[in-house]
Amino acid sequence: MSTFTAINLIARPAGGPVGPDLFEVVTKDIPKVAEGEFLVKQSHMSLDPAMFGWMSPDTDSYIPPVALGDVMRSSGVGEIVESNHPDFQVGDRVMGMMGWQEYFLSNGAGLNKVTAPLPDEAILSIFALPGLTATQGLYSIGKPQKGETIVVSGAAGSVGSIVGQLAKADGLTVIGVVGSDEKADWIVNELGFDGAINYKTDNLAEKLAELTPNGIDVYFENTGGPIQHHVFARMNAHGRIAVCGLIADYPKAEPDLAPNWIPIIKKRLTIKGFTMPDHFGEVPTLLAKLTPYVMKGQIKHRAHVLHGLESAMTGLNLFFTGQNKGKLIVKL
Amino acid sequence: MSTFTAINLIARPAGGPVGPDLFEVVTKDIPKVAEGEFLVKQSHMSLDPAMFGWMSPDTDSYIPPVALGDVMRSSGVGEIVESNHPDFQVGDRVMGMMGWQEYFLSNGAGLNKVTAPLPDEAILSIFALPGLTATQGLYSIGKPQKGETIVVSGAAGSVGSIVGQLAKADGLTVIGVVGSDEKADWIVNELGFDGAINYKTDNLAEKLAELTPNGIDVYFENTGGPIQHHVFARMNAHGRIAVCGLIADYPKAEPDLAPNWIPIIKKRLTIKGFTMPDHFGEVPTLLAKLTPYVMKGQIKHRAHVLHGLESAMTGLNLFFTGQNKGKLIVKL
Repeated sequence: MSTFTAINLIARPAGGPVGPDLFEVVTKDIPKVAEGEFLVKQSHMSLDPAMFGWMSPDTDSYIPPVALGDVMRSSGVGEIVESNHPDFQVGDRVMGMMGWQEYFLSNGAGLNKVTAPLPDEAILSIFALPGLTATQGLYSIGKPQKGETIVVSGAAGSVGSIVGQLAKADGLTVIGVVGSDEKADWIVNELGFDGAINYKTDNLAEKLAELTPNGIDVYFENTGGPIQHHVFARMNAHGRIAVCGLIADYPKAEPDLAPNWIPIIKKRLTIKGFTMPDHFGEVPTLLAKLTPYVMKGQIKHRAHVLHGLESAMTGLNLFFTGQNKGKLIVKL
Repeated sequence: MSTFTAINLIARPAGGPVGPDLFEVVTKDIPKVAEGEFLVKQSHMSLDPAMFGWMSPDTDSYIPPVALGDVMRSSGVGEIVESNHPDFQVGDRVMGMMGWQEYFLSNGAGLNKVTAPLPDEAILSIFALPGLTATQGLYSIGKPQKGETIVVSGAAGSVGSIVGQLAKADGLTVIGVVGSDEKADWIVNELGFDGAINYKTDNLAEKLAELTPNGIDVYFENTGGPIQHHVFARMNAHGRIAVCGLIADYPKAEPDLAPNWIPIIKKRLTIKGFTMPDHFGEVPTLLAKLTPYVMKGQIKHRAHVLHGLESAMTGLNLFFTGQNKGKLIVKL
């Protein structure tokens, strides 16, 4: 086989669901591997909410958008099938930003070898963007202390599920906000969260008050939406809020307003946003922090696997509908 | 004379203007000065926006409200007229929380001697709560760097005017938001701000864009109100927002909502609220930071002096109407 399939971004989302009309499926020749290069056959790609930012026209964002006509940006894992690079051998597993395509030619920049004896799905679910993001935000902003209470929105999501399990292992009371009873059941009975709120069916104010009798010390925000207002009102003095994602707000042309800032003064809150590209230099430190929890079996995951490169184009919408059950992964 | 006048809080504000109906003017006997005590004759009291919090029924605030029937809380400066305390002599000037009353009996706790050769009005305007608050918030949260741009709301106020002058002395571009052309003129032509916005008459979006062509790195928030949304939209990456006061929001039963949090992620903003009671232990450090600017003549002030203890009761409303010109002080 001398050709492979790639998917380019050719239009920008206008809000609402995304679909095949934004993309172009193209066939390319497998490139020659020059001196100092190697070729990766990608086996699994990660789908992440951050992709909506990467597709958007807003040049104001933390990394440039994907240029129209370029291959869509994504992280993935794969195996080296050909190498003229002294440090990368055929058969090595690597992880990094390889995009929506079956093959990826690299000189090694930005790719990391995968040595952990875990399947590709577990690598993408825990050690790739989700685990790094969870670890960075929870410890550098949330500063969790044993005995405190943390609320995590998007708690069954790839980041939120890891945040909650790390906090639980650290001795916090952990409450997760999810969008279905099935997810509520999973985070409480499988992951060990202390409580769950179904934002679609529960009375948010009542349920939150019941589950956080001592108030809230840390809020890890993955979603936005009405729950934000209820959590804000229950923050304790010197509370910390890590703002990681606002999936409920991204597709709206006029995003909902946020709570008035009076509690920021009264409670002396700290609110801080973060994105992983600022912290790629800290990846070794973050992995060193995360790995012991994983090795002790304290971090469970579940992957929601879509099949075939082209499934990525509509798969992204599962973030909006909340129908994904676990980390969204495309198996090539 | 063996009696003096004090003013007690007897009701809580319901929103909107406050007036004499919330207070009770009482006559008390001048107390005997026991061993280890001294008596201060207060000469000037400070009126501060924080007083609305101290009067409010919200027990959730950063310090307990003034109990109904107690003397209203305030800071002031005065002279010792009688002393049985080894460390405080008749004639010494002291500063501290002495309340709305002509005389104050103390064992020394919480009072500081005033040694700077400045008149009482300057002491209350610069070295008391306003200067401490400005110094704490600007340096611990704002982290101003030479060449950056800072926007200060309530810029002609007691805190805002000091924040702006400190930042200007540090080499920042300093833009102030005020509520009258007279205040705009004062901060630009007397205090040296680089620009002013009159939030009552200017087109906020246009004027802010014109005055901050390189975006905004630091926002020192004293007021709330619509300017908050416009500043938020122009924050630069890694911007810092110190939330010090929200005078526009306090009197509202249903405070206005705040900007959506999407820029907090995109720009990786830090938003942090603070109140001075958390930092009273740092007062010596803060004074050491502030004093050199004052001694170099870089911090100008103006006092808006009301006359007579009873003028405090309606004087507070000047914060809402914005009619105060400079630090509000009551001369006894």
